[in-house]
Amino acid sequence: MKPIKGFPSTSQDDYQLNIMNIARHGVRNFSRQEIACQCPQGMFRYTYLDAFRRMNQFAGALKALGVSIGDRIGVLDWNSHRNYEMYFAIPGSGAVMLLLNLRLSPPDLSYVIHHAEASWMVVDETLLPIAEMLWQSCKNIRGFIILTDKNLSDIQTTLSPVFSYEVLIQAQSPEFEWPNLDETSAAGACYTTGTTGQPKGVYYSHRDTYLHAMTICSGGEMSYRDAFLQLVPMFHAMGWGGVYSATMAGSKIVLPGMYRLDRLGELAELLVKEKVTVCNGAPAILMPMLEYIRNLENKPDLRGARFLCGATEPPVAMMKGYKELTGAEIIHAYGATETSPLVSINRLKPWLENQLSDDEKWDLRRKQGYVVSGLDVKLLGPDNTEVPHDGKTPGEICVRGPWITGCYHRTPMSDQQFTADGFWRSGDVATMDAEGYLKITDRVKDVIKSGGEWISSVDMENELMSYPPVLEAAVVGISHPKWEERPLALVILREEHRGKIGKDALLSHLAHKFAKWQLPDEILFVEEIPKTSVGKFNKKVIREVHQNRYMVGAG
Amino acid sequence: MKPIKGFPSTSQDDYQLNIMNIARHGVRNFSRQEIACQCPQGMFRYTYLDAFRRMNQFAGALKALGVSIGDRIGVLDWNSHRNYEMYFAIPGSGAVMLLLNLRLSPPDLSYVIHHAEASWMVVDETLLPIAEMLWQSCKNIRGFIILTDKNLSDIQTTLSPVFSYEVLIQAQSPEFEWPNLDETSAAGACYTTGTTGQPKGVYYSHRDTYLHAMTICSGGEMSYRDAFLQLVPMFHAMGWGGVYSATMAGSKIVLPGMYRLDRLGELAELLVKEKVTVCNGAPAILMPMLEYIRNLENKPDLRGARFLCGATEPPVAMMKGYKELTGAEIIHAYGATETSPLVSINRLKPWLENQLSDDEKWDLRRKQGYVVSGLDVKLLGPDNTEVPHDGKTPGEICVRGPWITGCYHRTPMSDQQFTADGFWRSGDVATMDAEGYLKITDRVKDVIKSGGEWISSVDMENELMSYPPVLEAAVVGISHPKWEERPLALVILREEHRGKIGKDALLSHLAHKFAKWQLPDEILFVEEIPKTSVGKFNKKVIREVHQNRYMVGAG
Repeated sequence: MKPIKGFPSTSQDDYQLNIMNIARHGVRNFSRQEIACQCPQGMFRYTYLDAFRRMNQFAGALKALGVSIGDRIGVLDWNSHRNYEMYFAIPGSGAVMLLLNLRLSPPDLSYVIHHAEASWMVVDETLLPIAEMLWQSCKNIRGFIILTDKNLSDIQTTLSPVFSYEVLIQAQSPEFEWPNLDETSAAGACYTTGTTGQPKGVYYSHRDTYLHAMTICSGGEMSYRDAFLQLVPMFHAMGWGGVYSATMAGSKIVLPGMYRLDRLGELAELLVKEKVTVCNGAPAILMPMLEYIRNLENKPDLRGARFLCGATEPPVAMMKGYKELTGAEIIHAYGATETSPLVSINRLKPWLENQLSDDEKWDLRRKQGYVVSGLDVKLLGPDNTEVPHDGKTPGEICVRGPWITGCYHRTPMSDQQFTADGFWRSGDVATMDAEGYLKITDRVKDVIKSGGEWISSVDMENELMSYPPVLEAAVVGISHPKWEERPLALVILREEHRGKIGKDALLSHLAHKFAKWQLPDEILFVEEIPKTSVGKFNKKVIREVHQNRYMVGAG
Repeated sequence: MKPIKGFPSTSQDDYQLNIMNIARHGVRNFSRQEIACQCPQGMFRYTYLDAFRRMNQFAGALKALGVSIGDRIGVLDWNSHRNYEMYFAIPGSGAVMLLLNLRLSPPDLSYVIHHAEASWMVVDETLLPIAEMLWQSCKNIRGFIILTDKNLSDIQTTLSPVFSYEVLIQAQSPEFEWPNLDETSAAGACYTTGTTGQPKGVYYSHRDTYLHAMTICSGGEMSYRDAFLQLVPMFHAMGWGGVYSATMAGSKIVLPGMYRLDRLGELAELLVKEKVTVCNGAPAILMPMLEYIRNLENKPDLRGARFLCGATEPPVAMMKGYKELTGAEIIHAYGATETSPLVSINRLKPWLENQLSDDEKWDLRRKQGYVVSGLDVKLLGPDNTEVPHDGKTPGEICVRGPWITGCYHRTPMSDQQFTADGFWRSGDVATMDAEGYLKITDRVKDVIKSGGEWISSVDMENELMSYPPVLEAAVVGISHPKWEERPLALVILREEHRGKIGKDALLSHLAHKFAKWQLPDEILFVEEIPKTSVGKFNKKVIREVHQNRYMVGAG
């Protein structure tokens, strides 16, 4: 689908969107705006202007070290002020900032560094043990830049050669001539960490990152009056675009530095002391923070604050808890590493305000929201045609647009994740209602493909578990010679019901909600269901164990 | 300055920014949002979905008429709902929407239509007399599409062939396959109407218009909760991007239809009845509206409303008046036809809120504001080098960026309006303070270039007129063999002072504020100063009359 050339414009269409323009804009208008970072010694504070000067110095240092346009530089750091500087200085200098997820296993991290062919690494001193574990397998690395306030001579490490970030930048001028980069050049890279296969590289262009930041600014309604807390780790999908959009908006920026779930008090205090009005985060961190707040004698007043919440669906209890205890609004947003990540955001439209009951509104807020401006989206059903936007018919979310990945970096056989017309297949199954709100119901790999239709395993599990005698239930699709797949249910009954409840009772319970053709062919009463390390049903194992159950001659 | 290619990204960088994506986004998420247009018969109301269907129909109609990709279509209309539809349908179909300024003289309009080689024209029935005047000189036009609710047979016109917009679209399907246009294709065109020379064509690309709309959304903090009134004529610089940004934000859209300064009551009522929260307009319309409101018994409550005010500096009295009488905030913004138009916007930064007195804040609000994200700006002094941002040193505002024109359409000799590194020279002289606020002081053509320095004629005139005996004073630069130019002042004294006040008195008054080298070489006492039709000093005439005054042997 090659674009059609219309009449020539007179616009400066060759002007390149560039991440450094965001920093330049920030410092031009908001030079006095504050950046505050939590450090072991206390709060470190400086201004946009201070940070900008250091970006210039670091770009100069990279050049002096021999880093060239297009080189990949691995970064292993917390949400620190130095990371903030590198977020601009590395891409701005023409190199690619390879964000290393410090939660990955060493073999996965080694794979990523190898695959990206990183030539330099920047490491926070607290993360040196991770880098040291990787080093033996990363012989392409030409040197390590250590993020520390200490003298390099006081740092013990087996890495070599090592440089101090602070010493490097002190040797440089606070002015740097930033290159005019083609906007399609890669700025940063993150690797997806699916449960199967090797990590896959998403290399975000300057254009991608810039347009995404503009969209976060609008969608999150961020302004120079806001104080933005970057709670999402900056190694996850470019920190969800937080620091770029906050800088574009001229917001105060608050960085939590190194933070841990066992030191939530500090985070909650940060929210209050720094008067945070916007933050981003996953329920995994927002939930325990709420519990911490619940136990405080004086609840923080966070009225007017908007917390962009992603990764998984926020529980209603959590959203209500924040509202009631602090006044903060939780705004659910949806995306993935492959989508920079913002795809959809949940805002309540004015006409729904009066139309819906309070309960309906809370229910709506759990949805993944409507697709932001700038992206094309379609929901593809089992036969690969678009499903109606009726809030009922499920389809796989497929997305196309300037901040969506069009491929994976040097990954053969990844075509199947894209449609012929260039949409990225999310693997998420959702419905869309007439108002455009997405509601994820399943993962594609968890729906049962039967006779050209889909059966939701999640819905069926929930329905089974709503039957009081059932303790746990898992439903998977098993290969079938005629129907492609057919459902199989594994059920653990509560002890007092064992031996008393049979398949027929469960089937007639399911029949209230499911059509006859959707009902499972088999229901197995078991004492245990295989689970993953994080406690989810391990459907891969279930499917393997029962793979031949519906084949001719079997079961 | 060819951009440097960095490492390849995996992003969908070939995805094209396209105006129709804005409409598609609007209808996807805000299909029920209202569009209200004032018509002679009363308010016409429909939804984003209704409008979108009609856009599809009109695009189908254009195709059926034989309009091709790249064709230019002249539009002569008020701020109507049909104009709103065409704002999307014409560029979306691949044609160029040539916006015709109905205030231009017929020869200028003829020139524009000729120069753009328009092949079709769309005309509101009330504007047929203008089109009829032009027709004889516009033989390239293949047909006229009339905007009317009447039957075509009831319309009397000498134009031919004529079609009815409504009849054309009724014959078409509400679905249209919009082309995938290269984002550098022209979407719309406006001609500048300077006081000298022929109108010059600015052809905005889809990319330009799209990025500008995103910026208006952020800068104006527009959202789906707003009701936006398009007060600026849609033929001025693409209506300042209002309808595109409002649609992108999902705002309610209010269109005033045909409006006149002598029917301000209707406009003021529209503001109140439609609960307008954002509008755009020039002081020329906002000032008389305020006077109308001042005379109302019940002042409208417009608290929370933001009026983006451009074209000229808003008087403090007007800004105060709106605030005190209605609660509405006037936000000054600066730009030109060549800049889509948003260059800078005036928002008060939080740290200035406490730092400045009330009077200082009002004074600040008169400034042109700070440059929005996405543009490069520099102020060039008389020697073409950048001046410091000290709030004192004046320089010509030069701008570069995705929504700035890089040339004029087929206009030879227009290079002088651009710097060698691609900045558009605005012709406006301004200072920039350390906070980044621009303050326009002069037009370049009105500053006096003396010995490589500038002398502000506007400042000198104001200083002369602050001297009680002076009734009027005009200052111009006159060619000088040694200093390039030297100031000449023309002064009308108040009657009682004539013959009693001499050159020396005025020079010593000026010496309080101006350096000795800046003082005018001559001060002429006159009884009349040449003026233009709108009552400004006609400096062109003054310069012509006195052009040889400082030459050797003269005066």
